[in-house]
Amino acid sequence: MNKGVLMVISGPSGAGKGTVVQELVRRSDDIFLSISATTRDPRPGEVPDRHYYFVSREKFRSMIENNELLEFAEYAGNFYGTPAAAVDRMLDDGKDVILEIDIQGGHQIRKTRDDVVLVFLAPPTIAELENRLRRRGTESEEAIRKRLAIAANEYRNIRDYDYVIINDTVENAVAKLQAVLTAERCSTKRIPVDKLYFPVK
Amino acid sequence: MNKGVLMVISGPSGAGKGTVVQELVRRSDDIFLSISATTRDPRPGEVPDRHYYFVSREKFRSMIENNELLEFAEYAGNFYGTPAAAVDRMLDDGKDVILEIDIQGGHQIRKTRDDVVLVFLAPPTIAELENRLRRRGTESEEAIRKRLAIAANEYRNIRDYDYVIINDTVENAVAKLQAVLTAERCSTKRIPVDKLYFPVK
Repeated sequence: MNKGVLMVISGPSGAGKGTVVQELVRRSDDIFLSISATTRDPRPGEVPDRHYYFVSREKFRSMIENNELLEFAEYAGNFYGTPAAAVDRMLDDGKDVILEIDIQGGHQIRKTRDDVVLVFLAPPTIAELENRLRRRGTESEEAIRKRLAIAANEYRNIRDYDYVIINDTVENAVAKLQAVLTAERCSTKRIPVDKLYFPVK
Repeated sequence: MNKGVLMVISGPSGAGKGTVVQELVRRSDDIFLSISATTRDPRPGEVPDRHYYFVSREKFRSMIENNELLEFAEYAGNFYGTPAAAVDRMLDDGKDVILEIDIQGGHQIRKTRDDVVLVFLAPPTIAELENRLRRRGTESEEAIRKRLAIAANEYRNIRDYDYVIINDTVENAVAKLQAVLTAERCSTKRIPVDKLYFPVK
């Protein structure tokens, strides 16, 4: 059995990552969403070990020191990271694993795993992204401007990613992500060296 | 509209390329099989301009000299090649174009088109390949041995290709080829430089 595919899905806030990833995972028994560890407190409705592994700062520090994290970052004073062990168990079991993290996290992972697949999930247009952010009604004008500028900059550096998928509809975006996973499993880069010999009896 | 994908499908005689490619093309209005030019005579049942463009040796030579071929080769005293103009018309029109040629042809094309996708269509096992060749009942023992040795060597150099697709069933192989075409259309390598800017109004 071949190893599964490790896929990072990044993209601007408002691109619809959450919905698309949920639907992708829901449709297949062979695709899993990785659970991040974090030092922040659970928010209402968040289930420990399902939405996040909630850990102490001491525990998180020891995970960093023992190389137990594929990547990690600090946001607003809290640490977030991807525990390697659970991910590797699933990949070795032939499952695909999705990480919903930012491109910096993706690049951290690529340093040690050159087969990680980096996907940028993009809104159809920047105007549509702006609409979605405004419809939420939770952010200031300044925060929205900042998010749009970040999105534009990410798009200018699109070659940092392997694939760009336009989230015009959830249906289309999920189908394209499934196609990328299927194609990556056929990539000759993924064939273990010991399987390169095709014996003639 | 994005340009289509240029895909070369190679693989051992007996891997089932013909059937798989026919089915792939039959299922989509956006996928076309390229028609080769050849200097050999038509065989019974072959329709000019559908199975091949049958041309004189003089015409073929002028096509080579005028860089009108994406690739060409000589087999058993006859020339075979892929006329570029028809392929480019389809790609520019957003269609995917499939070439059923050998890996040497694929490498010739890659020299001028680095976005060509090289696929190896493999039989499930070498034993199955042997069975298929024997079932044909058209080749000598020596010819079969030679074909198996060539196949084993191709497989040892599998990293010359971008993808390897096991033809266990036509259904599976076609689905995987479709996934590769969909994924390649999402590859950031294919985004024209002038589309890298995602404007903020």
